[in-house]
Amino acid sequence: MSRGCGSDCPASLDEFKNVYYSDILPLNRDGWCETEKFLEGVVRILLQHIKESNDPNNKVIRFYQPLELASLLDLEIPNNPMPLAQLLKDCTETLKYQVKTGHPRFFNQLSTGLDIISMAGEWLTATANTNMFTYEISPVFVLMEKEVINLMCQIIGWPEGQRDGTFCPGGAISNTFAVNAARHYFYPRCKSLGMGDMPKLAMFTSEDSHYSLRGAAALLGIGVDNCILVPVDDRGKMIPEALEAAIIAAKEEGFVPFFVSAVGGSTVYGAFDPINPIADICDKYGLWLHVDAAWGGGILFSKKYHHLEGIHRAQSVTWNPHKVMGILLQCSLCLVRKEGLLFQCNQMCADYLFQQDKPYDVSYDTGDKTVQCGRHNDIFKLWLAWRAKGTVGYERQVERLMGLAAYITAKIKRTPGYEMVLSEPEFLNICFWYVPKQLRQLEADERKARLEKVAPKIKGKMMEAGTTMVAYQPDKDKPNFFRLIISNPATTTEDLDFFVDEIARLGESI
Amino acid sequence: MSRGCGSDCPASLDEFKNVYYSDILPLNRDGWCETEKFLEGVVRILLQHIKESNDPNNKVIRFYQPLELASLLDLEIPNNPMPLAQLLKDCTETLKYQVKTGHPRFFNQLSTGLDIISMAGEWLTATANTNMFTYEISPVFVLMEKEVINLMCQIIGWPEGQRDGTFCPGGAISNTFAVNAARHYFYPRCKSLGMGDMPKLAMFTSEDSHYSLRGAAALLGIGVDNCILVPVDDRGKMIPEALEAAIIAAKEEGFVPFFVSAVGGSTVYGAFDPINPIADICDKYGLWLHVDAAWGGGILFSKKYHHLEGIHRAQSVTWNPHKVMGILLQCSLCLVRKEGLLFQCNQMCADYLFQQDKPYDVSYDTGDKTVQCGRHNDIFKLWLAWRAKGTVGYERQVERLMGLAAYITAKIKRTPGYEMVLSEPEFLNICFWYVPKQLRQLEADERKARLEKVAPKIKGKMMEAGTTMVAYQPDKDKPNFFRLIISNPATTTEDLDFFVDEIARLGESI
Repeated sequence: MSRGCGSDCPASLDEFKNVYYSDILPLNRDGWCETEKFLEGVVRILLQHIKESNDPNNKVIRFYQPLELASLLDLEIPNNPMPLAQLLKDCTETLKYQVKTGHPRFFNQLSTGLDIISMAGEWLTATANTNMFTYEISPVFVLMEKEVINLMCQIIGWPEGQRDGTFCPGGAISNTFAVNAARHYFYPRCKSLGMGDMPKLAMFTSEDSHYSLRGAAALLGIGVDNCILVPVDDRGKMIPEALEAAIIAAKEEGFVPFFVSAVGGSTVYGAFDPINPIADICDKYGLWLHVDAAWGGGILFSKKYHHLEGIHRAQSVTWNPHKVMGILLQCSLCLVRKEGLLFQCNQMCADYLFQQDKPYDVSYDTGDKTVQCGRHNDIFKLWLAWRAKGTVGYERQVERLMGLAAYITAKIKRTPGYEMVLSEPEFLNICFWYVPKQLRQLEADERKARLEKVAPKIKGKMMEAGTTMVAYQPDKDKPNFFRLIISNPATTTEDLDFFVDEIARLGESI
Repeated sequence: MSRGCGSDCPASLDEFKNVYYSDILPLNRDGWCETEKFLEGVVRILLQHIKESNDPNNKVIRFYQPLELASLLDLEIPNNPMPLAQLLKDCTETLKYQVKTGHPRFFNQLSTGLDIISMAGEWLTATANTNMFTYEISPVFVLMEKEVINLMCQIIGWPEGQRDGTFCPGGAISNTFAVNAARHYFYPRCKSLGMGDMPKLAMFTSEDSHYSLRGAAALLGIGVDNCILVPVDDRGKMIPEALEAAIIAAKEEGFVPFFVSAVGGSTVYGAFDPINPIADICDKYGLWLHVDAAWGGGILFSKKYHHLEGIHRAQSVTWNPHKVMGILLQCSLCLVRKEGLLFQCNQMCADYLFQQDKPYDVSYDTGDKTVQCGRHNDIFKLWLAWRAKGTVGYERQVERLMGLAAYITAKIKRTPGYEMVLSEPEFLNICFWYVPKQLRQLEADERKARLEKVAPKIKGKMMEAGTTMVAYQPDKDKPNFFRLIISNPATTTEDLDFFVDEIARLGESI
């Protein structure tokens, strides 16, 4: 930089009214001072948001209907440049109307919370702004991926020499890549010849599994109809006998079963399919076992819980650190036990990127393991947060969350008007109805019909009040119920007490 | 926050030696002061990196072989938590060995440069940490996506009512989703029934197109062999007559052609396929026309250049703002002219996420348009940077880059030892050989054989010197040559002069 901050440098944000993108780096190499001040201004806005998000007395959301919100905001892309002062204002306005997903009373998704260390990691990731496809432009991050993938496979229980995987843009894609890897394992010619030359493939997953398995069947040309949904028991867990029956039936119909996905933490109930009996069936019929532990993978940190017993028998696992581990979105892995398979399956050997005569060991160019070419750096925010907590920290975190889940379950059970959907939740999903007083004495059918409308109405009131956020959904013959997710490390028992009171308050106001 | 910064708050980074993740937010609600100071410490490290990256006299990279680098770094995930002081050190060490992709002399990829505004946008994105699937948790960002997708479609030239699209994790996925949308358009039953029940589909793309088209054929069960590579002319542009011949031949072999991809800026040569003649052929045979303008899309901002003439005739377009527009990685769109098609193609109607009885207009829940479930927010960094530059700013940016490309082309042509691979580059890819003095008098075959090894050797020296970075590759019968990419707004003519001298210096030292 040719100079430090001089007298002509903006002293306050207000002075950015006449400073434009062309006055700062990289276009103006003399613009260091303005660059620094602008970024410091942005950081002040972000710090304010973090501070507000962590105060439970603040609102989770200021909700407006889409058209209302569009009229409140200036969203237009202008023809001419806007000054940096306007951009700072844009940042403030954006956060003002954005949901505070890190708020201790935000329970709406499986991914909640704002891990400060992981966020710092993501800031660095942005500044490093690189692509994960080759070692030459991501040397440090490629090594970190290797370290972490190896560790996660080890935690799953796979022996050395049987540990591979790739980061994916979300669990749906991880599941899709797992199905693709399995197909390639059994039918390597499919890559060249397509599905037209293959037998009629069938894959199996529980009826409560994530929709991305059906999405994978659609995308891969297998067909949603050939993704067979296996019945679950009354706790939402796949019935192994039903799986075997479905496999036999499919074979009799001329299908070739090849892939079974067991759920490791279902989206709605947090149910875990019984892996060992399912693995026995896979062994018996020679099928690929995948475990979709996108949501439940984090339970592996605890020695107390055995939800994923048998997971080491899987050929592939989806595990999203952006869920229970609280890593910033997105952070998901497709882990595969067969080393080299991802390469064989996805490799296209592009000459311009994966030259074999590079001046280093090109096995570190991991980009050809995946369908993506450009790939975002999702490792650093995970690596840094894991360094901060240590493996012991994650053990504590997941056990604390399980404790909070037990706390709220007990509380809901003893609070009038509340009814559990499943009386003993296995994991961090607490599904319940709130039955307003006026409905409590109704006859069953009438009550059910009216209950269907209660959760959406409470949700509407809740969005307006902005005091908390929780999702609802129906399931088969069960009318709309709430699904409280305990995954936010910011949440305390006080926040949960508040939640129970608040739902009742809103429920009586509809 | 219950208190401000008191006397027990760390006064310097050194004092973070005894501060742990559990001492800051969100676990310690009284830890605001430590949280703020920690993040300020991180930002100082990032600012330093930005400053260093923008000084052309600094190194682009400190290169180490993978095993060497692994021994220099402490990459291990510990069992016990590490103090924040160590994490700050980790950040510094990581950036020390990371390639400076924003450096004015980094020419290695299509995506180069560090746009400060876009980076600020990505910092905010991290802090907002949300998921793009529903309006309820991303109200502002969903509206921004709508605005920007509409504008990009308008720039392409699609009329109102024929503008749709989705952000994708990289151009390879955008291309894949475009093929999937086209397949669904012609064969909607494929979603349910799979490829087994479809005719033998064939798709067409130029032999110089990006490998992700073949990747899409593999993933979607079409088969790489059925992704037919159409010959190009001596400038790397698809030969329309060859396309028509390939379509006729495929039909004669019993295939059903359905999809043609035209390249809008090829990866190696920056070639643009002639869209209008290709569109005529697509019209004639009733085929879907896709334009892969991942790299070249940015040229649409200029009225001076007509590389993408006819692009409005495409049914789908891939356009990566993370390339010519300089947006942070990743930012890519799959734009589709047929509104509603992405929904029909990818929709799985998950009850738990896309409830139809929500308290707002659920057409704003755009998550079911894509195969992804969790989807990273890639809009804000684009929206903010575009606000900063205005559309006029991008016009200037792309025209300035074209000017730099012309400058370096002229310079290379008149510099001894340099030979252009294509004498008149169409776009921002300048492909050339450097022929060291000792090779210049050799007989053709011998020269070619020796030339094959020159670029890798120069690259090796370059990595060690760390003064610049540029990629090389062979192509068909052409021995390894360099591909200089002009996409970094930080680059000046002085940097390009340096580059030409530096390659010659390195080339004579091998």
